[in-house]
Amino acid sequence: MPTADRIALRRNSGVKIADQWLRQILSLLYQRRNLSRIEIIETTGLNAASVSHALRYLVSKGVLHNAGECDAGTGRRRERFTLNAEAGYFVALDLEGDRLRFALTNFLGDVRCRWEECLEFRQPLALDKVVLGIGKVTRDLDRSQLSRVLAVGVSYPGLLDPDGNLSAVNLGWNKIPLLAVLKEAFPWPVFMERDKETCIHAESWLGAAQKCSNALFLIAEGGIGMGILVDRHHVMGTRGFSGEIGHCKFLPDAEDLCNCGQKGCLEAIASGVNIARQYAERAGAEPGSFRFVDVLEKARRGDSIALAVFELAGRALGSALSTAISLLDPEIVILGGDLIAAEDVMLPILWDQIQLQTQPRSLEVVKIVVSGLGLDIRLKGTASLAFRNMLEAPELIQRMCVPVRETAPEAAWAVGGRTAVE
Amino acid sequence: MPTADRIALRRNSGVKIADQWLRQILSLLYQRRNLSRIEIIETTGLNAASVSHALRYLVSKGVLHNAGECDAGTGRRRERFTLNAEAGYFVALDLEGDRLRFALTNFLGDVRCRWEECLEFRQPLALDKVVLGIGKVTRDLDRSQLSRVLAVGVSYPGLLDPDGNLSAVNLGWNKIPLLAVLKEAFPWPVFMERDKETCIHAESWLGAAQKCSNALFLIAEGGIGMGILVDRHHVMGTRGFSGEIGHCKFLPDAEDLCNCGQKGCLEAIASGVNIARQYAERAGAEPGSFRFVDVLEKARRGDSIALAVFELAGRALGSALSTAISLLDPEIVILGGDLIAAEDVMLPILWDQIQLQTQPRSLEVVKIVVSGLGLDIRLKGTASLAFRNMLEAPELIQRMCVPVRETAPEAAWAVGGRTAVE
Repeated sequence: MPTADRIALRRNSGVKIADQWLRQILSLLYQRRNLSRIEIIETTGLNAASVSHALRYLVSKGVLHNAGECDAGTGRRRERFTLNAEAGYFVALDLEGDRLRFALTNFLGDVRCRWEECLEFRQPLALDKVVLGIGKVTRDLDRSQLSRVLAVGVSYPGLLDPDGNLSAVNLGWNKIPLLAVLKEAFPWPVFMERDKETCIHAESWLGAAQKCSNALFLIAEGGIGMGILVDRHHVMGTRGFSGEIGHCKFLPDAEDLCNCGQKGCLEAIASGVNIARQYAERAGAEPGSFRFVDVLEKARRGDSIALAVFELAGRALGSALSTAISLLDPEIVILGGDLIAAEDVMLPILWDQIQLQTQPRSLEVVKIVVSGLGLDIRLKGTASLAFRNMLEAPELIQRMCVPVRETAPEAAWAVGGRTAVE
Repeated sequence: MPTADRIALRRNSGVKIADQWLRQILSLLYQRRNLSRIEIIETTGLNAASVSHALRYLVSKGVLHNAGECDAGTGRRRERFTLNAEAGYFVALDLEGDRLRFALTNFLGDVRCRWEECLEFRQPLALDKVVLGIGKVTRDLDRSQLSRVLAVGVSYPGLLDPDGNLSAVNLGWNKIPLLAVLKEAFPWPVFMERDKETCIHAESWLGAAQKCSNALFLIAEGGIGMGILVDRHHVMGTRGFSGEIGHCKFLPDAEDLCNCGQKGCLEAIASGVNIARQYAERAGAEPGSFRFVDVLEKARRGDSIALAVFELAGRALGSALSTAISLLDPEIVILGGDLIAAEDVMLPILWDQIQLQTQPRSLEVVKIVVSGLGLDIRLKGTASLAFRNMLEAPELIQRMCVPVRETAPEAAWAVGGRTAVE
């Protein structure tokens, strides 16, 4: 909603440029990457002069590249504009799963510097580890680089209350004041988003669902959840509890005990850790003897127990997807988490079950693909979250437009970049 | 989206009144029914003078009532405004189910005159029967009454192509030019909507979901479908095929053959006709010996076969709702169609199954209720469809504001009103 200060005008060489124009152009180029002046004018609906002024301003500040190209036919030069992905950086923080992931990313979520830290099993996470981790991905930056860090993006599991206190089982946290501590420790704005949303937004802005209005994202990790995109909007539900497909039951007689206390939940059968658990049980081995990747490798080699466990998990996941597809008529279903590595074993079972259970009409257009964003999906998603939120506030748009240093930032990261797992 | 002609101003006693003001006020009073001038100003965000001009205009045209009331405390008169539901009429047409339903309704979907016609089993419906049916609900109107008929609303099953040709199995229709024929035969604008949407819109505008942003509407009739409301918008899906829960499978071993050709679909187990079919099969009776209401009556009297059939149907429906609630986190689930009559028998089974299968957190706020709109739900829904569409076009808003005759229209309908089933 435009407010008085948002449509405030900025002067550049005597020409007034509205934040609204910058927002529209940056948002468009974030999604479409590479456009001509004419395409920008047509898509935004802004007038030609406004677009020209804004483009000149953004190029002068280093936020856009003017990527001219020669038309092969006419020999005429065509101007095209792209977002300079290295014009700013975000600190991205992913709290889901069995480890903390910290990254410094560029505008498009490409990781420039990374730090990972395993969570200790059943030990509550100390909040200062989060502060130290952010310190680790930013400590080698020089002053000029540090000035290009614009915001912190956090992808969180569990429940965040309106005051920014987080409760999350995997972290052992109950109402821990995460937002307040991050705001106190760092000079940047902090944007936070629930992990399922981060994933569907990452796919929607940077991944397989870029051109889709209706998409589902099924992620199987510790738990199983679904991100739902309807008419390009993420479905939150009444209280933000949408997508809880992991606790639905698709095999009525299943006795597998879920973390939630119920039996037969989808995630008690089909999540990575539960596939490993079932293998150990069926093979008569100690609990914890096998990891998910071990069972996957056994299935690839034709181990009949491993294949039976994957068969069961795939059938349950297929039933879940059949119902979700029938209900929501999506263009695309994207599989993430442990399903990425298991594509070769899991996808045929899953697709077979979907076809068995679903009316053919509901399957006429839908594609089922594995996420191309990999394990960094939430880091990329928080970068997209931060970028979009920056555009909403005039003072943050201005910070994006502080001139970029002349030295190529990528060269600098190549020296400072490192990956570590404690 | 405001276009030049939509924001055209109208003169009333020398005062200019924008269609936009009329649209906002009528839309608000349609939803909220009874508001003071101050409430209208605060909710619409229009300025006080505009609201006063528009209210005076609408009252003078008979579209609004000025329903003043005395404040018991201060003795001061408080003006309140309500929509005059009888200021205009719609022809409503419901093509779903085993019969055609025609009605003349007021603005709020109250049926003033009705005509029903059974479909002949497996005989394609002749298009002129639709034209004749509309003729029957309007033929006793005098000229002045006829001038208050503003539009035709149609709730259709099946698929409508962009040219208004309808394909629907229950009508035996394949690309029948319904829209063209109605436009040719009658002088009114025609608005058409798919049956699932009509239902969820009826609940959202006139029924149990009036104050809800997120709602599910499960209707079990010949088939079973679900209308989905997310953030007050109806979820259509990529091709308008959302809500196809009737063809999902929730009892893996079920052998019941569905109309779609697959086995074990929800509607092959839990729709009214299939409950009757299962009863006949289990009782060793001829197919077609019992109707749904017969089986329902037997269940109420403790017939063990009837109870077992309802138990199975209720478990399947409960599993479907469990998944839909977990995925979409709605505030309310509304049950319609045959489920309304079977509330006493079905609801306890259904609710038990939902609680068995769903994470308690997902059930903290959701209510499950039976639709209060009854079998007229789609007739009411098309009235709401017509009303909302009338507001979108300036020339139609003007038609709504033609002065209403002085005689009370309700008295007239009491003479002309009739219900007939051929």
